[in-house]
Amino acid sequence: MNIKFEEREELKEKIKDVNNLGFGQYFTDYMFLMNYDEDTGWHDARIVPYDNISLPPSAMCLHYGQTIFEGLKAYRNGDKVFLFRPDENFKRMNRSNDRLCIPPIDEEFMVEALKKLIDLERDWIPDSKEASLYIRPFVIAIDPKLGVHPSGSYLLMIILSPSGPYYKDGLAPIKIYVEDKYVRTVKGGLGTAKAGGNYAASLKSQVEAEEKGFSQVLWIDGVNRKYIEEVGSMNIFFVTEDEIMTPELSGSILPGITRKSIIELLKSEGKKVVERRISIEEILTLHKEGKLLEIFGTGTAAVISPVGELFYEGTEIIVNNGEIGEISNYLYNELTDIQWGRKKGPEGWQVEV
Amino acid sequence: MNIKFEEREELKEKIKDVNNLGFGQYFTDYMFLMNYDEDTGWHDARIVPYDNISLPPSAMCLHYGQTIFEGLKAYRNGDKVFLFRPDENFKRMNRSNDRLCIPPIDEEFMVEALKKLIDLERDWIPDSKEASLYIRPFVIAIDPKLGVHPSGSYLLMIILSPSGPYYKDGLAPIKIYVEDKYVRTVKGGLGTAKAGGNYAASLKSQVEAEEKGFSQVLWIDGVNRKYIEEVGSMNIFFVTEDEIMTPELSGSILPGITRKSIIELLKSEGKKVVERRISIEEILTLHKEGKLLEIFGTGTAAVISPVGELFYEGTEIIVNNGEIGEISNYLYNELTDIQWGRKKGPEGWQVEV
Ligand SMILES: Cc1ncc(COP(=O)(O)O)c(C=O)c1O
Ligand SMILES: Cc1ncc(COP(=O)(O)O)c(C=O)c1O
Repeated sequence: MNIKFEEREELKEKIKDVNNLGFGQYFTDYMFLMNYDEDTGWHDARIVPYDNISLPPSAMCLHYGQTIFEGLKAYRNGDKVFLFRPDENFKRMNRSNDRLCIPPIDEEFMVEALKKLIDLERDWIPDSKEASLYIRPFVIAIDPKLGVHPSGSYLLMIILSPSGPYYKDGLAPIKIYVEDKYVRTVKGGLGTAKAGGNYAASLKSQVEAEEKGFSQVLWIDGVNRKYIEEVGSMNIFFVTEDEIMTPELSGSILPGITRKSIIELLKSEGKKVVERRISIEEILTLHKEGKLLEIFGTGTAAVISPVGELFYEGTEIIVNNGEIGEISNYLYNELTDIQWGRKKGPEGWQVEV
Repeated sequence: MNIKFEEREELKEKIKDVNNLGFGQYFTDYMFLMNYDEDTGWHDARIVPYDNISLPPSAMCLHYGQTIFEGLKAYRNGDKVFLFRPDENFKRMNRSNDRLCIPPIDEEFMVEALKKLIDLERDWIPDSKEASLYIRPFVIAIDPKLGVHPSGSYLLMIILSPSGPYYKDGLAPIKIYVEDKYVRTVKGGLGTAKAGGNYAASLKSQVEAEEKGFSQVLWIDGVNRKYIEEVGSMNIFFVTEDEIMTPELSGSILPGITRKSIIELLKSEGKKVVERRISIEEILTLHKEGKLLEIFGTGTAAVISPVGELFYEGTEIIVNNGEIGEISNYLYNELTDIQWGRKKGPEGWQVEV
C-alpha cells in the first residue's frame, strides 16, 4: 500500500529540556493514519500533520470500548535511530485485534509505515541516554451506530511523543501494593489484549494505592485470588538463589515484549528461568526464609523496575533491603544498551531507521 | 446551572417509517453537552446542533477506555411524552462514574437537562406503540495525555436516536447460548458499571453465538464458571411454580432498571420474587423435572424478552415449548402500558415532559 504524505506548513518548536518532557504529553508534527471499512479493507494510509480528529458522537469507540493500542519507543544514539523489536508490537496488535473483533493489519506493512514516520520525525527523538520517543499505535472503532456489535469501520493511528527519562535520578526501587479488592481481568476476558477497558478497570485501584503511598499495584488473579499476575503496566519477575521466575501467560496477563526479551536474554546466558503459577503465599514464604533475593518489573516504559517493597494485607515485604538488586541492575544496563544500540543485541532486536 | 442554546439553521428531515428505523442509527437535530475540568468542575452545559466532535488523538477515552454510558427512552402517547424513571439512570451513571474515577454529576440537574432536550426534540419521538426515542447519555475522558491515570477533564453528552420496535412482528421468544469460554467480567472488575470495556469484552462471544444461530449470550460467572449472571444487555429471570427468581447483584452484574422495576411490580402484586445465586445446573435440573415454566430477559431495549431456548454445553433447554409464557406476556404489556403512559404506574416511574 502506498503511503500518502501531506506536509505541514510550519513545524512546531521542539522541546529542549528532555528532563521536563514527562510521559505522553507532547506530540510531534506528524501522525500516521489508515482507515478500514468492510468494502475496501485497510486503505488510505497517510502521514499528515498532527491534529485533532473529528468523530461522530455515536462513534462506537466512545461507547463500547472497542479500542486497542500498542506502545514502543524509538531510541537515538548520535545519528543512529533504533526501534526495539517493532514486529513484536504489531504481532501483539493483531492478537489484540482478534480478541476485540477488529480486522487484522499487515504486520510487515505496519513496520515499514512506522519506519517511514520515524524517519520523518527523527529530529524529535531526544538525544539522550534515558529519554526517547514514545510510539503509540492504536485502533478505534468508528461506526456511527449504537448497536452492540463489532464496528464495520476503524481508524488506525500512530502518534509520537518525545518522553523524558522514566527515572529522573537514576534507577530506583519502587513500592508496590498487592491489590486484594479490585480485579483487572480474568481468564476468558480481555487481559491478554492491550484493550482500553483493561486500563479503565485499573484506575481506581491505582488511585487508592497511590493514596496509601505506593507507586504501583500488583494484580492477583480474579479466580483464586492468590496467584500473581502482573503490575499496572509491567510484568513481574522474582529472583531466588536457584532460579528466576515469572508468572506464566495464563490467559489473563499481557504478554510483555520486555518480559519475553528478558527471558530470552537470561536463558541465552545459561540462567534458569521458569514461567509458572506463583502464589503470593509462596513469595511470602520465600521472603521469610530469606530466599527472595530480588523482584523486578519489566515493561517498555521503565525497562526494568526494581521492587523495593511489596505490601500485602498488612505485611510489608522488604526486598533486598529496599535496594536495587544485582540482576535488576545488570538487566537494566544490558537491555538499554541494546535498545540504544550501544551494544549488539540478538538477531532482529535492533531495527535501525 | 444555566443551559445555553445554539439553534440549528436547518432542521433535518424526520424518518417517516418507524419500522425501518432500526436501533441507534439516526440521530436528532440537537445534542446536550457539558464539560468537566479540575478547576471549574462540571460547566458549560449547552444544547447545540448534533454534529461531529473534535478530539485530540491522545484523548484518554481513545486509549484507556475511561468511558461510561446510560440508556433510556422517551415514549410518545398522542401529545404526551414520558420518560421512565430517568432519575435511576443518572443514579446509576454516578455509580459508574465512581467506579471509573469520573467526577460525579448532579443527578437532579441532569434530569432537568434531559427534559429540556427531550422537549425541544419531541417531534422526533415516534408516534407509535412500539417505537420510541432512545436516549444515550455518556461520559468520555478527554485529557490529551497518555499516562495511565484518571483524566482531569471530561465531556458528558446526551444524544437521541429515534429507534424502531424491538420486535417487528410482536413479542417473540429468543434462543440464548450459555457462554462457556469467554467471561464478561468478574467481581472486583467493572461489571456493575455501564463501562465501555464490558461491552468490548462481549463482542467476540456475541459474534460466535450468532454464527451458531443464537441471538444472545448468557454469561456465567468467571470464578466458579457455574452461576448465572446476565444476558448481553439484559438481566434474566426464571419462573417456577413456586417463585420467580433472578441472580442477585453479586458484584459483577449490571443492576438493570427494568430488573428493579419488574421485581417491584411483581412484589406489589404479591408474587414471590427471590434474588440469589442460581447455578446453571439448578436450571437444568428444574427443566428436567418439568418445573421450569418460563425464562425471560429484562432491559430497556426489549423491555421483556421471552427465552424459548437455552443452549448449554450441547444440551438444548426448550422452555415453555419455545413459546411466550404467561408471565412474560403479562409483564411486557404491563410495563409498556406504564412506559407509554397508557396506565398509571407507581409513584415516580412516569416523568412527563
Ligand atoms: C498490563 C501490562 N502488562 C505488561 C506490560 C509490559 O509490556 P511490554 O514489555 O511489551 O511493554 C504492559 C505494557 O506496556 C502492560 O500494559
Ligand atoms: C449488561 C447489561 N445488563 C443489563 C441491562 C439492563 O439494564 P436496564 O434494565 O437498565 O436497561 C443492560 C442494559 O442496558 C446491560 O447493558
